[in-house]
Amino acid sequence: MRLRIDLAYDGAGFHGWARQEGLRTVQGELEGALDTVLRASGSAVTVAGRTDTGVHARGQVAHVDVDPDRLAEAAGRRDDGAEEALLRRLNGVLAADVRVRRVSTAAEGFDARFSAVWRRYCYRIADVPDAVDPLVRGHVLSWPRPLDLDRMNAAAEMLVGEHDFASFCKKREGATTIRSLLDLSWARVDGIAEATVRADAFCHHMVRSLVGCMIAVGEGRRDPAWAGEVLTRRVRDSTVTVVQAHGLTLEEVAYPADDALAAQAERARVVRTLPGPA
Amino acid sequence: MRLRIDLAYDGAGFHGWARQEGLRTVQGELEGALDTVLRASGSAVTVAGRTDTGVHARGQVAHVDVDPDRLAEAAGRRDDGAEEALLRRLNGVLAADVRVRRVSTAAEGFDARFSAVWRRYCYRIADVPDAVDPLVRGHVLSWPRPLDLDRMNAAAEMLVGEHDFASFCKKREGATTIRSLLDLSWARVDGIAEATVRADAFCHHMVRSLVGCMIAVGEGRRDPAWAGEVLTRRVRDSTVTVVQAHGLTLEEVAYPADDALAAQAERARVVRTLPGPA
Repeated sequence: MRLRIDLAYDGAGFHGWARQEGLRTVQGELEGALDTVLRASGSAVTVAGRTDTGVHARGQVAHVDVDPDRLAEAAGRRDDGAEEALLRRLNGVLAADVRVRRVSTAAEGFDARFSAVWRRYCYRIADVPDAVDPLVRGHVLSWPRPLDLDRMNAAAEMLVGEHDFASFCKKREGATTIRSLLDLSWARVDGIAEATVRADAFCHHMVRSLVGCMIAVGEGRRDPAWAGEVLTRRVRDSTVTVVQAHGLTLEEVAYPADDALAAQAERARVVRTLPGPA
Repeated sequence: MRLRIDLAYDGAGFHGWARQEGLRTVQGELEGALDTVLRASGSAVTVAGRTDTGVHARGQVAHVDVDPDRLAEAAGRRDDGAEEALLRRLNGVLAADVRVRRVSTAAEGFDARFSAVWRRYCYRIADVPDAVDPLVRGHVLSWPRPLDLDRMNAAAEMLVGEHDFASFCKKREGATTIRSLLDLSWARVDGIAEATVRADAFCHHMVRSLVGCMIAVGEGRRDPAWAGEVLTRRVRDSTVTVVQAHGLTLEEVAYPADDALAAQAERARVVRTLPGPA
């Protein structure tokens, strides 16, 4: 049976999501906790957003296939309460910087990665650095100069839509870098500059490169139109800075209705493995 | 000349506010930074709220008397920009877990401790522990059982007003434990149970004891009326738990208009040093 696992973590203590031998990663911790609680070995988790070192998550989603008998044994029950019991046991094993927020039986056809229709990230910047609240410094970037959000929103408008985002991706990996950027906008929340970034999927470093591009505009070093120029170049642009990881949080992953999960997964598998333009 | 210093800190890395030999304290760090920046020695800071180990502050206020010539030298200017320059230099010296948010010339008669008319604290509890956001776990207490805020507000009503709070104070120190509790109420903010606690002043452990008392009511272990019974006993009550420090944040300190600062300080000095009832 397949379980859907909703989780949150403080990225500061992790070398990112993906398991790496000898390093503390979210995947490694979660799979280890599943192995412990289920008395299994080799639990293999699939995730919606493979976050980099230092990136946080509030609304991460993963799935894992488990033996129903092991789940019943670990939970001490076979009824609807088994997932809730597993959640409590997992959180008892995991450290405080990663919390499982929900465990549920996945609907038929659910795939945490390929069934997702969009991912929403938030990037937070305190651009009046002396006003940074020390209690949130772990997930808010401190920036030494004031940012003009109107200019940044003007730049953002050039980037929204379906485009080849190769200019903002770590490198061409043989696969397409075409993505649908559904939302990109800045707003002030309690004095903090917050970017909402929502897309069907992201390539590597894409959010942090987009934010780096818009910061250059927000400080006045570049014009808003420059964002559009970078986009149309379609090669990784060394003048665009990849901003620090700790300002970035994966906030939400959205899935279609249960009866559309399998079709969405099939479509995403095809789209995501399209070859890039050489 | 006297400077007013508004500051914020993450209490996790400090042995409280008050300077102690060989321990990292907020006062020690701030006075050390002032000595460094002003090329002085023995800078002595007076604070509005002497927070305990682990307690945070967003709106702490302090004052320090400095030599105007040293300030002008450190700031590189004598005009209105000197305080702003000092702020930047202090934050350059201080670690990221304490931030000076404002430096200003204090009005005549200003005393950070005695001129204050009230202090406002917030205590935050996540009582659905699996839902705790790992990004805020440093300043939100995780509580294993659900809390009924209606019951806690009923208990709070028994406590608001001018009373002898000896039942909730660490110990009788020869001075009065009579305080005016101006506000005490609970509300849910993004799922978190938040207490607002505002008083003219607090005795030692008072907020954390009040919260411990109300938690017992909120879980159903005690009736709301019990809070009133504890209060009227007027001796430190061992059945009242002093809850953990890390859920507590000093949010705001209020002062009267400039022309009332000196009179308020004089009044507070008298009231705060009244002897206790033996």
